[in-house]
Amino acid sequence: MTAGLRREHDLLGDRDIPADAYWGVHTLRASENFPITGTPISAYPHLINALAAVKEAAARANEELGLLTAVKAGAIAAACREIREDGALHDQFVVDVIQGGAGTSTNMNANEVIANRALELLGRAKGDYTALHPNEDVNLGQSTNDVYPTAVNVATILAVHELLDAMAVLRRAFAAKAEEFREVIKMGRTQLQDAVPMTLGQEFSAYAVMLEEDESRLAEAVLLVHEINLGATAIGTGLNAPAGYAESARGHLAAITGLPLVTAANLVEATQDCGAFVHLSGVLKRIAVKLSKSCNDLRLLSSGPRAGFAEINLPPVQAGSSIMPGKVNPVIPEVVNQVAFEVIGNDVTITMAAEAGQLQLNAFEPIILHSLSESITHLRAACLTLAERCVSGITANVDTLRATVENSIGLVTALNPHIGYLAATEIAKEALATGRGVAELVLERGLLPAATLAALLRPEVLAGTGTGTGSGPEGKAVENADAEGTDAGGTGAAS
Amino acid sequence: MTAGLRREHDLLGDRDIPADAYWGVHTLRASENFPITGTPISAYPHLINALAAVKEAAARANEELGLLTAVKAGAIAAACREIREDGALHDQFVVDVIQGGAGTSTNMNANEVIANRALELLGRAKGDYTALHPNEDVNLGQSTNDVYPTAVNVATILAVHELLDAMAVLRRAFAAKAEEFREVIKMGRTQLQDAVPMTLGQEFSAYAVMLEEDESRLAEAVLLVHEINLGATAIGTGLNAPAGYAESARGHLAAITGLPLVTAANLVEATQDCGAFVHLSGVLKRIAVKLSKSCNDLRLLSSGPRAGFAEINLPPVQAGSSIMPGKVNPVIPEVVNQVAFEVIGNDVTITMAAEAGQLQLNAFEPIILHSLSESITHLRAACLTLAERCVSGITANVDTLRATVENSIGLVTALNPHIGYLAATEIAKEALATGRGVAELVLERGLLPAATLAALLRPEVLAGTGTGTGSGPEGKAVENADAEGTDAGGTGAAS
Amino acid sequence: MTAGLRREHDLLGDRDIPADAYWGVHTLRASENFPITGTPISAYPHLINALAAVKEAAARANEELGLLTAVKAGAIAAACREIREDGALHDQFVVDVIQGGAGTSTNMNANEVIANRALELLGRAKGDYTALHPNEDVNLGQSTNDVYPTAVNVATILAVHELLDAMAVLRRAFAAKAEEFREVIKMGRTQLQDAVPMTLGQEFSAYAVMLEEDESRLAEAVLLVHEINLGATAIGTGLNAPAGYAESARGHLAAITGLPLVTAANLVEATQDCGAFVHLSGVLKRIAVKLSKSCNDLRLLSSGPRAGFAEINLPPVQAGSSIMPGKVNPVIPEVVNQVAFEVIGNDVTITMAAEAGQLQLNAFEPIILHSLSESITHLRAACLTLAERCVSGITANVDTLRATVENSIGLVTALNPHIGYLAATEIAKEALATGRGVAELVLERGLLPAATLAALLRPEVLAGTGTGTGSGPEGKAVENADAEGTDAGGTGAAS
Amino acid sequence: MTAGLRREHDLLGDRDIPADAYWGVHTLRASENFPITGTPISAYPHLINALAAVKEAAARANEELGLLTAVKAGAIAAACREIREDGALHDQFVVDVIQGGAGTSTNMNANEVIANRALELLGRAKGDYTALHPNEDVNLGQSTNDVYPTAVNVATILAVHELLDAMAVLRRAFAAKAEEFREVIKMGRTQLQDAVPMTLGQEFSAYAVMLEEDESRLAEAVLLVHEINLGATAIGTGLNAPAGYAESARGHLAAITGLPLVTAANLVEATQDCGAFVHLSGVLKRIAVKLSKSCNDLRLLSSGPRAGFAEINLPPVQAGSSIMPGKVNPVIPEVVNQVAFEVIGNDVTITMAAEAGQLQLNAFEPIILHSLSESITHLRAACLTLAERCVSGITANVDTLRATVENSIGLVTALNPHIGYLAATEIAKEALATGRGVAELVLERGLLPAATLAALLRPEVLAGTGTGTGSGPEGKAVENADAEGTDAGGTGAAS
Repeated sequence: MTAGLRREHDLLGDRDIPADAYWGVHTLRASENFPITGTPISAYPHLINALAAVKEAAARANEELGLLTAVKAGAIAAACREIREDGALHDQFVVDVIQGGAGTSTNMNANEVIANRALELLGRAKGDYTALHPNEDVNLGQSTNDVYPTAVNVATILAVHELLDAMAVLRRAFAAKAEEFREVIKMGRTQLQDAVPMTLGQEFSAYAVMLEEDESRLAEAVLLVHEINLGATAIGTGLNAPAGYAESARGHLAAITGLPLVTAANLVEATQDCGAFVHLSGVLKRIAVKLSKSCNDLRLLSSGPRAGFAEINLPPVQAGSSIMPGKVNPVIPEVVNQVAFEVIGNDVTITMAAEAGQLQLNAFEPIILHSLSESITHLRAACLTLAERCVSGITANVDTLRATVENSIGLVTALNPHIGYLAATEIAKEALATGRGVAELVLERGLLPAATLAALLRPEVLAGTGTGTGSGPEGKAVENADAEGTDAGGTGAAS
Repeated sequence: MTAGLRREHDLLGDRDIPADAYWGVHTLRASENFPITGTPISAYPHLINALAAVKEAAARANEELGLLTAVKAGAIAAACREIREDGALHDQFVVDVIQGGAGTSTNMNANEVIANRALELLGRAKGDYTALHPNEDVNLGQSTNDVYPTAVNVATILAVHELLDAMAVLRRAFAAKAEEFREVIKMGRTQLQDAVPMTLGQEFSAYAVMLEEDESRLAEAVLLVHEINLGATAIGTGLNAPAGYAESARGHLAAITGLPLVTAANLVEATQDCGAFVHLSGVLKRIAVKLSKSCNDLRLLSSGPRAGFAEINLPPVQAGSSIMPGKVNPVIPEVVNQVAFEVIGNDVTITMAAEAGQLQLNAFEPIILHSLSESITHLRAACLTLAERCVSGITANVDTLRATVENSIGLVTALNPHIGYLAATEIAKEALATGRGVAELVLERGLLPAATLAALLRPEVLAGTGTGTGSGPEGKAVENADAEGTDAGGTGAAS
Repeated sequence: MTAGLRREHDLLGDRDIPADAYWGVHTLRASENFPITGTPISAYPHLINALAAVKEAAARANEELGLLTAVKAGAIAAACREIREDGALHDQFVVDVIQGGAGTSTNMNANEVIANRALELLGRAKGDYTALHPNEDVNLGQSTNDVYPTAVNVATILAVHELLDAMAVLRRAFAAKAEEFREVIKMGRTQLQDAVPMTLGQEFSAYAVMLEEDESRLAEAVLLVHEINLGATAIGTGLNAPAGYAESARGHLAAITGLPLVTAANLVEATQDCGAFVHLSGVLKRIAVKLSKSCNDLRLLSSGPRAGFAEINLPPVQAGSSIMPGKVNPVIPEVVNQVAFEVIGNDVTITMAAEAGQLQLNAFEPIILHSLSESITHLRAACLTLAERCVSGITANVDTLRATVENSIGLVTALNPHIGYLAATEIAKEALATGRGVAELVLERGLLPAATLAALLRPEVLAGTGTGTGSGPEGKAVENADAEGTDAGGTGAAS
Repeated sequence: MTAGLRREHDLLGDRDIPADAYWGVHTLRASENFPITGTPISAYPHLINALAAVKEAAARANEELGLLTAVKAGAIAAACREIREDGALHDQFVVDVIQGGAGTSTNMNANEVIANRALELLGRAKGDYTALHPNEDVNLGQSTNDVYPTAVNVATILAVHELLDAMAVLRRAFAAKAEEFREVIKMGRTQLQDAVPMTLGQEFSAYAVMLEEDESRLAEAVLLVHEINLGATAIGTGLNAPAGYAESARGHLAAITGLPLVTAANLVEATQDCGAFVHLSGVLKRIAVKLSKSCNDLRLLSSGPRAGFAEINLPPVQAGSSIMPGKVNPVIPEVVNQVAFEVIGNDVTITMAAEAGQLQLNAFEPIILHSLSESITHLRAACLTLAERCVSGITANVDTLRATVENSIGLVTALNPHIGYLAATEIAKEALATGRGVAELVLERGLLPAATLAALLRPEVLAGTGTGTGSGPEGKAVENADAEGTDAGGTGAAS
């Protein structure tokens, strides 16, 4: 035996392990088998923490059921707490994030690290598995097929909560601008063509409301992930998990994490099903779609400075060009667009991985975890960056905006009920052909008295902010039924 | 003027229309502009009916507000009822399902057909628009941008209800088989490798539970589509819609359709937002993923007849091969797989269309409608076909299934807690190498007494159907929280 | 036996068939089994014609090899010619386009229709299969697994040729505009921000070149589809196809269709492989991406009329709004965008179907055919509509365009080499802050003499159309290496 | 000024930079603006090396044209060589891989690092930009919009070459197994149902041929990426790049990299076009689809050990389960499946990013680079792992395989031409119902003499390996027309 090494044994034979490594032979083989991305699972701290929480909960349940001594259970729990509370030993979680085996290597990596740290805490040498064994003790009553999905669920919940916080930051930034711009009159556009007047506040309010709805959907979707299959063991039949184990382990895990976890009613189904992840990814995709649309709008509205819409100004955050002096580009919305495209692609990856499950298990949960984690954490970063480095610094070109309304052919729409669609069409055609103004032409043709015309074309009337066209009390938004508040909706047409 | 023709006028000039056509000049131009699929919107009867319902509701609201005479409103309403109650005039809805213009051509087609039928009912000639005008009267207080999305919502709700019914049929077919096969013992598999025993009933129960969860998700998602923007007019500011119109029109539409529709709280947001469709499509994709997975399993379990798994038999529904006599193929699951692939592709189409919305409107709702309709109706057909022509006729090869359990190496897992993971691994290795049985080897090595061994290997113990490993009362499934019943869950491990 | 019916028999028993139907019992069962889309395979005339061509080729090969009498072969060939030359009996191809069974039902439908028509030509009654049998004679030496893919290949080639023609029409429309606008100076934009000057001709030239490259890629991709597996029979081993059959049948099919078809070198591989379809769909997606981008640009450049870019005008083709008089929308580009989104979604469907192939066959070729056909025919319609109803009628707002250049801050980039990036940045900042012009500020600061400045800011210099910055003779474009011509490239920077 | 810091200035003001940093103010701002993934661009060494190559080529071209002194050009070139030849300073490339600004931050990062290293080489302090400036000198005559795409192209070519090598390794592994198993008779399957006999060699040969075709497609696709737009500067008009610059820079870059790069004929088009990346990603997706299908087959064929197909054995590479002793799972094919799903998702991301390009530029190339790099490098790792840790160790269960043939009902297909489809169908039905053998039943019914029957059922005849059903000399495969060799095709049906 070489110095600095210890020998470990598995199904395939013996292997030497660095003496100071907390991981063991199973981790070693997995590291060799999956040299795919170079990114270790330690890149997902929520997952490592969640694994530690699950292992601690299982140890406590096993202790409770008399299957594990208090000493062993205590050592395992202490090791787990170091990992999830102190961030200790995360660097020992070395297997690649994209791995075969349905997460077995991740589970084995956790079993080995926790066992070896527990051995140390018990005053034993690493590798002294007769005293405390990765599989026989740390993994007691467990299978990768219930431990791994449960840990992924817990990790996902933690990450989603962070995303929800970031979305709220962005929503509030949009809502603040909606309030700031509530009296800034501008032309609304449909199909990129001038339509009818509105306020810039209404425009920004829509972004806030979109986000608020998305927050509601995400909050609902993450509830599904609270359903766990701990106790299912290999295929959901609970083989080798004694009566009471599932409930005890769930209870400990809920207590440790502070999350209202529930055990799935049908563990066979829960063990093979990835529906909740597909669902969650679908909601993330929805968020991405909306964020991307909002950023497209911001880039469009700030296009210019002279040959574009030039309605708003994004705060400059860096020089825009290595060749064009003074150019400032909408780099923050652009990076958000790209995150959105990534999330949409990840949704396809997750869809395919979920569809590829066979019989009692989906072997492809590692890529689901990987893609889901990326989507959630990148969306979070995108929301914060967009809020702090872009939205909160946006200013409006108020005079330009008002001028486009006064100069607009779309004003004629407001006259529709008074002069008729056909006459209005004729006015619009002439205005377009001659470059003249709508009001001018209406007066010239004697279609309306000047005073009436002026009243009809008052900005607050045109923008609908002064009239009650909305829904009234029963217009309770379905989408927002459970949202935390309606701060963003305050400037909407309905109020 | 040529006989058999009438002349109509629009922004671009005059055009001759066949005298017997109920559609008019706008429809004619749209038909020429969009020769894309050859499929007219009449292929979506729910949409035509929904358009008629919206137009009737708008007419009644306008009458109530004194903007439309009772005579005109009555004629419009009568024409609308013929369309949606009698299926009349659907063949007059001729514009292509894929069209530019955010649905304007569909709305114009509806306005023209309803106006001309109403004119007839009033004893006037088609085209006599001075008496009743497609835009001034039928479209009064409306814009394509609120009418079309509202109609799409109503049509979608109707279609989804049909899909939910079909899913329930399929779920019950799976649940019936779960009950029929509840005592059929078999090997469970993870990663396509023999794992541990279970019952065929548990396997089919999982399919039923998956569907039940999907039904719950779909029922939730369709609720979002009950939020409409009628009264928003062009961009959500409600321009040209008088106070009270939105609420009155909503109320009439709810009454006509029997659906609990609500008006969006923020109409500017609602007019540009396609989030509910993206969400719904995401749920349809989830359903597709699960259905496809279940069908993959059915094809796998029925593979053979001699060189495959040969665990179950799908009912033969047609000769399988033009060259291989007697071959019977799993054609029904195969067609369901293909529908699933289509739904997943449609989700990407819908995602891109939603992301492409700009500023106050999404101009691409026609392709969203098209893809969503296809997904819903094809999924419905797939569920019914799968239930009736496949699942309900499935039989089990009970003896083969039992033999695979008795012959299995996976049995050794059950001995894990009694002989240890390491000893069990040795037994497994020898069994694999020699072809001998696990029980035989355990006895030979004297690891367990014969009686103990026999007790541990009893089928009902192995399958977990005799033990309480499940969740107990608090294990209320999140996914099924709102489901209509738990008939399918009855054979799950948790019960 | 009821009048008007004939009885047919298959593996599953007897069924009555309408006496005047050319299809038989296999088609009947398939129609009942696959009530999915309601669209029969006759909706794809290229496929029906291709099936007839394959059956005729097989009959001639069998005759040549002495396996089929000249009388039978002649009758089969005559029936096939009626179908593909006269469009006869297409209405007898009634099975659903989305079907299980890897195309077996389509092949059986063809066998039955051809057999019954051949029987008629021989003076026999339909259903008199002892005289000429759908399977024993029409399908002789064949399997669905070689006939169907071969027919799909032939049908695809025919459809792609039509698409290539339509793309050339669109390319020429763009190129004509590039020529027309070659001297129209305007501001180029990057990231939607004003960048540096160019000509509108250069802008349209880019669209033409993009299409030209796409045509080259499509022409290459369709070559792959010329590789057929006729003679492979069930799994590629050629069981039941005698020596010489594959080559003879290929030769006849090439002669009948006029296409340079080749037989795959490895028929086992060719029979299970859908790579060429995935590849072709990938190229269609590329075309869709570019078309969509070009249409996005057209919509952006024509945004307005007053509160947008207003650089070009798309020809009005229909009234744009049911509520906003005089509004004209970019409906043609919008419909093209939607086709693009559909093609991109179809690519995902095709990808999933191809990935789902198992062992010696891909059972999901029907949905591949369906999605591919839709993509090709809709793209073709989109190209023609875009060329004829939009691009060819585009006009430029020449004065507006020139004014944006003269007023631009981006002009300062051209002074970069003369006054330095840092000084240029200062000028740009001041211009932006004050609204003043770049030239004015440069002169005021005495950074350049007036004459020099004027020379540097000449439009043709700024747009690079007067200088040789391009590639020279060796700059042979890889993408265009095999394109039919370079008419579109003529206004590019390189010339 | 604090010790350990230097002050730099840009459009937005002054910032302090760590004195030992080679990057500067632009990089600092970008790092703050894009805290998205945490992965710096240094994670893509091919990109860093390519950037250094482009900068060196530009410096040499500028020197040649008299725009840069030999001293400056020499210092820049020396710094670039250190980066790309010695791997020096890669850790200074710190901006996030997902960034807004079309790659501007990456280009700025390169300009700053190269400038500061060149300053050091010239004996100057870092930050002494009056002596040598990141923008005025290192970026001279360049824009991000030509430099970045060109560098991405070069990096992509380098990565694709590595992937091609890995694919060849995997292809040869499959081909070696095809040769090893050339006489192993087995049942072929279509639609997971027993079909007709073949050899295991034919089965593996198909995997080799698929890969060979994919290599050909990839080699073609990467050719398109050899077309660069260096010299286009901001929008393709070549503003600020003097005559001769584009060609000179291209020539130097070709010499430095050893790649046959060409300049695009139309630089305006080339600067906005992402078609080549969409195309390349489409080909990578095709490769992923095929690899995934092959891995699905390997997992299916090795299913068992007792309740599955059990035709082949994958080499065990790690223990398969934390709970099921002795279980060995197909973890290597599983990880390849997951990479395939990732590549397919990335293709959607790239598609959306390409479609989102606007006017003269695509601002989303950073996510294209990111997704493309991941796809290429992960596919490469997957191919090598699959070859070395799985395919090369596969063994066959020869006796089991032969038994399935002898026991098969599918044998009856071979008798089709001799006893007819109808009689054969009857035999098949009886065999299935009774469990008896086909030969036995044929003899019992006196349908064929025993000797004839035996001759017809000889394995080599059944598998088609002894007959010439293939294509003959003219059957030149289109797909393989340009492939490097046909080693894999040798065991195909055609030989």
